[in-house]
Amino acid sequence: MSEKPLLDELIDSLKCLPGVGPKSAQRMAFHILQRDRAGGARLAAILAEAVQSIGNCRVCRTLTEDEVCALCRNPSRDDKVLCVVENPSDVIALEQATGFRGRYFVLGGRLSPLDGIGPAELGIPQLRQRLEELGPSELILATTTTVEGEATAHYISELAGERGISTSRIAHGVPLGGELDYVDGGTLAHAFAGRRRLTAG
Amino acid sequence: MSEKPLLDELIDSLKCLPGVGPKSAQRMAFHILQRDRAGGARLAAILAEAVQSIGNCRVCRTLTEDEVCALCRNPSRDDKVLCVVENPSDVIALEQATGFRGRYFVLGGRLSPLDGIGPAELGIPQLRQRLEELGPSELILATTTTVEGEATAHYISELAGERGISTSRIAHGVPLGGELDYVDGGTLAHAFAGRRRLTAG
Repeated sequence: MSEKPLLDELIDSLKCLPGVGPKSAQRMAFHILQRDRAGGARLAAILAEAVQSIGNCRVCRTLTEDEVCALCRNPSRDDKVLCVVENPSDVIALEQATGFRGRYFVLGGRLSPLDGIGPAELGIPQLRQRLEELGPSELILATTTTVEGEATAHYISELAGERGISTSRIAHGVPLGGELDYVDGGTLAHAFAGRRRLTAG
Repeated sequence: MSEKPLLDELIDSLKCLPGVGPKSAQRMAFHILQRDRAGGARLAAILAEAVQSIGNCRVCRTLTEDEVCALCRNPSRDDKVLCVVENPSDVIALEQATGFRGRYFVLGGRLSPLDGIGPAELGIPQLRQRLEELGPSELILATTTTVEGEATAHYISELAGERGISTSRIAHGVPLGGELDYVDGGTLAHAFAGRRRLTAG
C-alpha cells in the first residue's frame, strides 16, 4: 500500500467502476464508511471471490463460476434452437424480456480483424462443435447491427448454412412506442427497407 | 454463500453503493469481469481493508485509518482557528476550496433529539476538551442551514461563548453566478436579510 491515506485509495479504486467519477467515488466511499460498512464488507468479499473464480462456461462461454453454467445444465431447455449473442449481458436481457427456452452461445465480441478479433477469439471452433453436438434446427443471430456485428452474423450464418441449419436474425427497426421523427435515420431506413407484408396480395 | 449464481450475488452486492440501481449494478459487474479484473481485485482488497481499519480520528473525529489523522498531526496548521463541520466530506470540500489553515472538528451529524442524536453522539465532550487544549481564538461554524444544523451551531456557539471564544458562521446566500430568479425563496430571503453594508453611511 502506498503512502496515500486509505480513504483516498478507496475513492481512487472506486473510479474503476464505469460511470463513476471523482465526485461519485467520494460519495460512495463516505456512504460505505459512514452508513453501510456491512454492505461494503459483503461487496469486498463477493467482488474478490468473483474476479477470482468467475470464468467462462465451457459450453456457451457466458460468465459463470461453474465449469458449465446453470442455463447449459438445465435439461428442460430446447436443444433445437440456439441463440448467438455478443455478450453475457445479452443473455440476461433476452432471458428477462423474451420467453425463449432454447440454448445460447456467447461470442464475447464481434469479428474485427483490425483489432485482432478473429473467429478463434469469438469461440467459433466451440460454436462449430456445439452445432455438431446439438444439431439445432434453428440458429438465431442476435448480434448488433454495427458493421462488425453484421459481418459476424453473416459469417456464422454461412457456417450454419453448410450444415443445413436455418438461421434467423432478430428484427431491427423502430422501437415500440417510438415516434418516427425521434428515431435515427439509419434505424428508420432499416425499418422501412425491412417492412413486412400484412396481407397476401 | 447462498445458492444464487455468484454473478447475481455480485450484481446484488453492488447495489449497496449509493445511486446504483439494478441496471448500473449489472453494467458494473460485467465491466469488471470482462474488462477490468485487476481494478476489481484492487477495489475488493482496498474496500475490505477500509471497512476494517478506517475509524474516527481520536482528535477531530474525521475518518482515518490512523489513530490521529494527517491533518491533526500536521504541525504547521494554525491551532488558533477551529472549524466545526458536520461530516468528514465537508473537511475535504473546505480543504479543496478554501485556503483555511486551521484545525477541524467533525461532529458526524447534527443535533436531533427525536432521532436520539444528542451532544454525546456528536462528540461534544471531545469538542469541549479540544477547546480547552487548543484555546482557539476563533471557532468557525460550518454546519448546514437546516433547523438541526442551526440548532447545533447555536449550541456550540454557546459552549464557545462560555470560554470567551469568538464564533463565526460561514455565509449563506446566493451562490456565485446564481441568477436571483433561479435561487430558492429561503436562500433569497436569507441573503436579503443578511445583506452587508458596502460603504459606511
